[in-house]
Formats: sequence, C-alpha cells, structure tokens
Amino acid sequence: MGLTQVDRQYSARVGMIGAGQLARMSQQAAIALGVELQVLAAHEHDPAVLAGATHRIGEPFDAEAIIRLAGEVDVVTLDHELVSNEALRAVVESGVPVRPAPESLRFAQDKLFARQTLFDGGFPVPAFRHVDSQGDVAALAETTGWPVVLKAETMGYDGRGVVIASDAAEAESVTGEGDWLVEEHLDLAVELSVLIARRPGGQSRTYPVIETVQVDGICHELVMPARINDDLRDRAISLAEDVVVAIGASGIVAVEMFYTTDGRLLVNELATRPHNSGHATIEGAVTSQFENHIRAVLDWPLGDTRLVAPAAAMVNVLGTASPGTAIGSLPEALTVDGARIHLYGKHERTGRKIGHVTALGETAEQALDVARRAARQLGGTI
Amino acid sequence: MGLTQVDRQYSARVGMIGAGQLARMSQQAAIALGVELQVLAAHEHDPAVLAGATHRIGEPFDAEAIIRLAGEVDVVTLDHELVSNEALRAVVESGVPVRPAPESLRFAQDKLFARQTLFDGGFPVPAFRHVDSQGDVAALAETTGWPVVLKAETMGYDGRGVVIASDAAEAESVTGEGDWLVEEHLDLAVELSVLIARRPGGQSRTYPVIETVQVDGICHELVMPARINDDLRDRAISLAEDVVVAIGASGIVAVEMFYTTDGRLLVNELATRPHNSGHATIEGAVTSQFENHIRAVLDWPLGDTRLVAPAAAMVNVLGTASPGTAIGSLPEALTVDGARIHLYGKHERTGRKIGHVTALGETAEQALDVARRAARQLGGTI
Repeated sequence: MGLTQVDRQYSARVGMIGAGQLARMSQQAAIALGVELQVLAAHEHDPAVLAGATHRIGEPFDAEAIIRLAGEVDVVTLDHELVSNEALRAVVESGVPVRPAPESLRFAQDKLFARQTLFDGGFPVPAFRHVDSQGDVAALAETTGWPVVLKAETMGYDGRGVVIASDAAEAESVTGEGDWLVEEHLDLAVELSVLIARRPGGQSRTYPVIETVQVDGICHELVMPARINDDLRDRAISLAEDVVVAIGASGIVAVEMFYTTDGRLLVNELATRPHNSGHATIEGAVTSQFENHIRAVLDWPLGDTRLVAPAAAMVNVLGTASPGTAIGSLPEALTVDGARIHLYGKHERTGRKIGHVTALGETAEQALDVARRAARQLGGTI
Repeated sequence: MGLTQVDRQYSARVGMIGAGQLARMSQQAAIALGVELQVLAAHEHDPAVLAGATHRIGEPFDAEAIIRLAGEVDVVTLDHELVSNEALRAVVESGVPVRPAPESLRFAQDKLFARQTLFDGGFPVPAFRHVDSQGDVAALAETTGWPVVLKAETMGYDGRGVVIASDAAEAESVTGEGDWLVEEHLDLAVELSVLIARRPGGQSRTYPVIETVQVDGICHELVMPARINDDLRDRAISLAEDVVVAIGASGIVAVEMFYTTDGRLLVNELATRPHNSGHATIEGAVTSQFENHIRAVLDWPLGDTRLVAPAAAMVNVLGTASPGTAIGSLPEALTVDGARIHLYGKHERTGRKIGHVTALGETAEQALDVARRAARQLGGTI
C-alpha cells in the first residue's frame, strides 16, 4: 500500500481494535512516525486513550463500530485477539486492509486450529488432542502419562483457561464447559519467544531470541538475547521464521516456544501483534516492536531489529491488593539508576499487568538486577 | 513536592505552556511515566495536540489561560520562553510551582540580562554592549574590530533577530527598532552544548557534552559526545554546571557555548527547557532530556544521563517549498537502516523545523552518516 491522501499533518492513519497497554505503547511509536493511531476502546480510561490516541468507544465484537473505525483509517490492526472476525472480514471486503488478515489471526484465537494446522504442516508441537469426551484425556495420558495440561481452545490469555490436571477426576472437573484441548505436560529447560516483523509482501525481520520466565501462565520477566547456545538459537529462529511464513501474518508475530529438558523445541502459542515478550525492544533494539508493527501493517520498510546493548531485561509489574501502590512508589522506583519504567495508567488489581521495567546491561544478570529492583518498588512482580 | 492527590490513573499532572515539538516529545516521555501532560496550545493542530496531550487553546501571553491551566496540574513548565512572566508570577502566588521559576526563565528570555548577569558573576561571555546609540556599536567595534554581531535582546529564536554587520552603516540599518545588543564576532572552532537536569533542591545530572553545527543560527546537526579533548570537555562541563547553579533553574537547562579558534570557551545562550541540542538523548542516553525534564519539574529522582552507545548523532529536517515532501518521502527514508525518524506533524514551510533523525554508532561519523542519509530523503536539511 502506498501513501494515501491523508491530512498533510499525519503520515498515515492506523486503526487499532483495543486500547490496552499494547495500543498505548503503539501510540508512543506512532507519534515519532507522524502516524495517527485511532483506537477502538472499551472505556474512556483505557491505557491508550489516556495516552492520547484518537479514540471511539466500542466493543471488539461490535461490527458496526469496527466498520466505522475502518472508514477513517488506512489499515486496521489489533492489540488483542478477542475480536469479531466477521466484522474484520467485512472490513476487508470494504477495501480497507486488515493486518494481520483474519485467516492469520485465527492462529492466535483458536488453539486447536493452531496446534492442528502446525502439526499437519510438520511443525513440532506438544502432543495434543481435542477433548470430545473424557476418553480423549485418558487416551492422551496413556501415551504421555499424568499430569496433563488442559487448555481452553479459545478466549484464554495470561494463564486463564490453562489447568494442570493430575488425574482423570481433576480433568473431568475442568472440562465440563466449553471446548478444551488436552496436552502433554512438559519438563521445560527454558521458554523462548521469537518476534518477527513481516510486511504483507512477505519481507520480514527477526529480533534476537528472547528468554521468558512465565509464572502461572503470565510473563514475569525476560532477557534478550536468550542465554542459550548458538545451535538452539539458530533452531529457534529458523523454526519461528518457518511458522510465520506458514501462517502468512503481517505485522509483528510472536512465536512462543518450549525447550524441554529432553531437548525438544516445540511451538507453543502464537500472537499476531506486539507481545509482552517484546517490551524490551523499546529500549533494547534499534527499532521497537511497536514501531515495526506500525511500519509492517502500513507496508513500510521495516526497521533494524538488532540490539543496542549486549543484554536487555524486562520485569512485569503486577497490581497489588492496595490500589495506588505503583503510583505512590514511583519516585522511589526512579532512584534505581538505569531502570526504564513504563506505567500503563491502569487501575490496580491483584495480579493485573499494570506496567513493566526494562534495563540494559553488559550481561543479562546485570540488566535483570536493575529491572527487578525497580519493579519490586512498584509493587507486585509475582 | 510529594505526590499529590490526582486521579489514580495518572502518577502526576504537568502543565506545559506551548505545544510544539518539545511538548510533543515530552508527551511521549509522559506516557511511560503515567504522567498526564496538559498543554496550552495556540492551535488545535499543534504538534503536541496531534500527539494526544490533553490541551486547552490559549496564547502564551494570556494570563487567564495560564492560570486556568495551573489550576489543573501539579506544576507548570514551558516548551518555549515567549510567555507572560506576569502570569507565571501569579501562578506561583496561587501556590502552584512554576519550574523553571520566572527569575531563572529570564536568562532565556532576555539576552542583555543574561549576558550582563553572567558577566557580573565572573563567567566568560563574548564582549558585548547594549545599543543605546550608534556610538555603542562604534565603541565595541573599536575594541573588537568589524564585523560585529547584533542581537535582538528579546523574542529572538532560531537565528531570527541575529545579524552580522560589516560596518557602521549596516549596523545602523538594523538597530532602528527594538532593543539590541552588539557583540564581538568570533572565529569559532566548535559550538558546544551542555544539558543539565536539575531538581528544585539543587540535585542535578549532566549529559555528555554535545557538539552542534549551526547554520544561519539554526541547529543543523549534532554529535554526542562532542569530538573534543578531555580538557575542553571538563572545562565545558564545569562551566555549564556553575552557570546552572548561578541561574538556579529547575528542569532541563541547556548551556550553549562557543569555543573560539584562539582557545576561549564562552557562554552563548541559555535555554531553561528541553532543547534541540538534546534530541539525540531520546535514543542515545539512558534517560531522555524529555523524561528528565518531567522528573525534574516534579522534583522526582533524575535518570541516568549516560550514553547507551559510543556515539549518537542527530540531523534536523527542515521544511521545503513543497508541502508534503517529508510525509511523501517517509517510506524511502525508512529504508535507511538504523535511522530513528521523528516527525513533528507540522505543516511544512521552507526552513521550518519539521522533524529530526537520530542514529547511534561506533563513531560520530558513522552515526552522522546514517542520520544524514535519512534526513536528506525527508527534505531540506540546510
């Protein structure tokens, strides 16, 4: 897509469904590029609205609101997957591109579809089975042993809809409602994430491999580059690049992977948007994932994905039971030299992601130490 | 100042008079800190308004508008000096801090006052004299020789109000209206700028010395750190730190200096706000001048001012006679790897600062080369 006829003061207009922290940080990147970010926000106090993104209020399943948004912008993209695909298809039919396309987005929305399609394409994934009856759980457990992992096939995020079941009775108590997958329980050596920015024509750029530490299914902290050997690094990058070609997404794609203690590298989940595991790219990489997402969905040349320091680390800040903890502790946290603090403007609730801290360093440990100290000041970190 | 009772979603509220590119980049920094930036904008399409800063429309000499702004925020600061000091004093009297204080701001507003006060304080400044009559011009020229430099004592910026006069007739044609200074014309080896972030209590942090290239009084490009020897670097930092203590400002202070071919280091101009010479701190320093300005005026702990790379460079992008050049050339400019492009959302006019490009590098030359190539794509650079 070339440049469209927009008001001369904006270089382009990007519509984003959702106005959370990913949209908020996209707004910071949009400002530098002279791009207007228009978000579809559920509430007036959503993080991206507080950051000044042009907004209209609407639910992500409100087709009319999405189509109205599309009428004002050059391209529609998303800050989360829980949207109406029917509306997105209507937008595409109206001639406004949706990036990622609804077909690619499905890989992030539907875990069974993603697992099955990747498996059929020859990609390594955990042993899995759709749960039609308890017989399916038992059949998988017979091969892999107990415990097993149960995952809601849709609408799960940040650990919601993921349960480890130790036996058949526990499994049965979980899978009563909705559609579930059952998967083998893995002994993990490390969890990895590879972010790739991809243009509609297929041109792409890959960020260094990120090592993530998940606790209860929520990203807790990460270091970039991952502390892994060159061979595993190359395997992870190659696998992620193949996956991204297979799903054909444009924008940022995050390929989350498991590396098991017995040496298997498996694709876990896919996100077709900026991702928590990429937050350290704001300070750590030449071009942040947020800027590259905007560039990619506008089909503009992609930015350099290399690191600007030997190591970068990020620690999430989670809300505590005492609202105002993060804001009240901010001056204290700012005393930690080198800590780059990001607050999302979200009301605090226990365990809610309300911010993150990044640091650069000569080593991953040094960067982690700085980021952890500031994050601890700001409140819960897990 | 401690944290005030603000809406829980904002960590603090900062009022800024003016909504140009400095306010725009302050908005990006404010987002990360969870700070609401409220700007007093002359127009609805000012750069910071397009970037989503909360705004009200009002002229910087409109005392009522400034006082209304002050009523909504924890502290009032500025993105330019051309404001009503009377209004600022009324704000201070109302109990809302103004940072920098009006007494410090005067050093940036009134060139005669700044020169005279610094001279009286023993600081090195160019030979100067207030022009009461043509006799004053002749008296200075008798000591320093021709040409001389004539400077409007107030309201000058970006080279406006600065004229080089070769003889008495030329000088007379310039100084007919308004108040003028006459100064010696210097042979410059290099122009330097030292940025210092300073809290109200006096705690401060100094950025590495910046080397600027000015053309026709407008900052054209810069490198950080300056390519000077350690002795000159130490002299420049020491001089700047002494000046900042003398003027007592809080927030960012930029001390622009001349280093002459005969080895004199002289204070040129002072800015008591984020400054064009500090734009490379966004990518080049651990903490940008914009974030440190916000932290300083809120009396929060200041951030690390060290560089994240061996060298950083910045090149300004100036408007051309063909509006839309920068926006139309953006995709082409984005092909320059490592170039960090900032567009301000300003209508293009010939010679108007409409954006800048930063690059990091192993050497100043390497960083400059990248920034220049992208800036050239975007239009005029001088």
